[in-house]
Amino acid sequence: MAQNQSAPDATRRSERSRRAIYDAALALVVEVGYPRTTIEGIASRAGVGKQTIYRWWSSKADVLLEAFLDMAERAAEDAGHVAHALPDTGDLAADLKLVLRATVDELRDPSFEAPSRALAAEGVVDEELGRRFVARLLEPQLQLYVDRLRAAQAAGHVRPDVDPRIALELFVSPLAQRWLQHTGPITHDYTDTLVDYALNGLAPR
Amino acid sequence: MAQNQSAPDATRRSERSRRAIYDAALALVVEVGYPRTTIEGIASRAGVGKQTIYRWWSSKADVLLEAFLDMAERAAEDAGHVAHALPDTGDLAADLKLVLRATVDELRDPSFEAPSRALAAEGVVDEELGRRFVARLLEPQLQLYVDRLRAAQAAGHVRPDVDPRIALELFVSPLAQRWLQHTGPITHDYTDTLVDYALNGLAPR
Repeated sequence: MAQNQSAPDATRRSERSRRAIYDAALALVVEVGYPRTTIEGIASRAGVGKQTIYRWWSSKADVLLEAFLDMAERAAEDAGHVAHALPDTGDLAADLKLVLRATVDELRDPSFEAPSRALAAEGVVDEELGRRFVARLLEPQLQLYVDRLRAAQAAGHVRPDVDPRIALELFVSPLAQRWLQHTGPITHDYTDTLVDYALNGLAPR
Repeated sequence: MAQNQSAPDATRRSERSRRAIYDAALALVVEVGYPRTTIEGIASRAGVGKQTIYRWWSSKADVLLEAFLDMAERAAEDAGHVAHALPDTGDLAADLKLVLRATVDELRDPSFEAPSRALAAEGVVDEELGRRFVARLLEPQLQLYVDRLRAAQAAGHVRPDVDPRIALELFVSPLAQRWLQHTGPITHDYTDTLVDYALNGLAPR
């Protein structure tokens, strides 16, 4: 973000334009879908010229990815935390359950849900967009689970031969599939159960 | 399917029309996406009248769901088996790995992949279509895992307190998410690892 201290008014105007552009992009992708969202449409709805958008971004995919990053950051600030790491109380099950319960609440938040579904749907059929979405938005969140599972391995709570990047999918992916494909209800009890099954396994102990 | 033995020619003509309609519907949904696929477009491409389609189906969603069921049945026949149950050799891990390896091969088959992605993407944003897709195509397959896990519980290989409908998601959903969202490679080694982690858990034994 531009931080030109000698021109505070210009900076505030830029910030207002940027926010208007993000809001317009998120609203349009919900209303008409990703394929029919255009730079022209975003500019018109945001009340700015096309050139204002092209000064900052090179494509509608870039605008939308940054709009999502901004939305996620604001949601984290509203929730009173900016997460750069998962909690580590020493109790892996409790920490994972806490984070997954918060994810359930986020996935069920209507302001988050509609634009996220529009972008996720396009990522299913547009592999290039899907991979950028994952690299910028999803994978950084998944790496927080990798870090937490590595700490659990160091503490002897997860087997040393387990690959954390695959292990996290045992509790993250079921929630993702239920949300994406409407395959079942999404509740705190459900994600608690996933964590218990993943840590303890299905076979008798 | 009509089985009028007194009019075999008419039955064969119906069967040919039905197959042409399925092929047209699957091709169109790949080329223009679900929202722009129409009954008129399917009829025109299949070389039949609109009324022929409306005689058998009430909407494009119905045509597509049956086209997918037909494609899945033909794929199973080509593979030399029509699966009404998962294998049960008494070795749960081996049986699950075998089935998931076959699913990996199916997900990577180009003729299956493109129409499946088009329908799955629409299901993400169209909840009603998504739920019909799941009820008709996905849930019956998942119930085969439920049955196999119940048999494993009866044999003492899975804990009696485990809910099989949730448990199956520990190995099915990671594969589904990687396929839907391009979050990682899909290989036999990967699904073998998922089965081992799910059955044995991540915590030390």
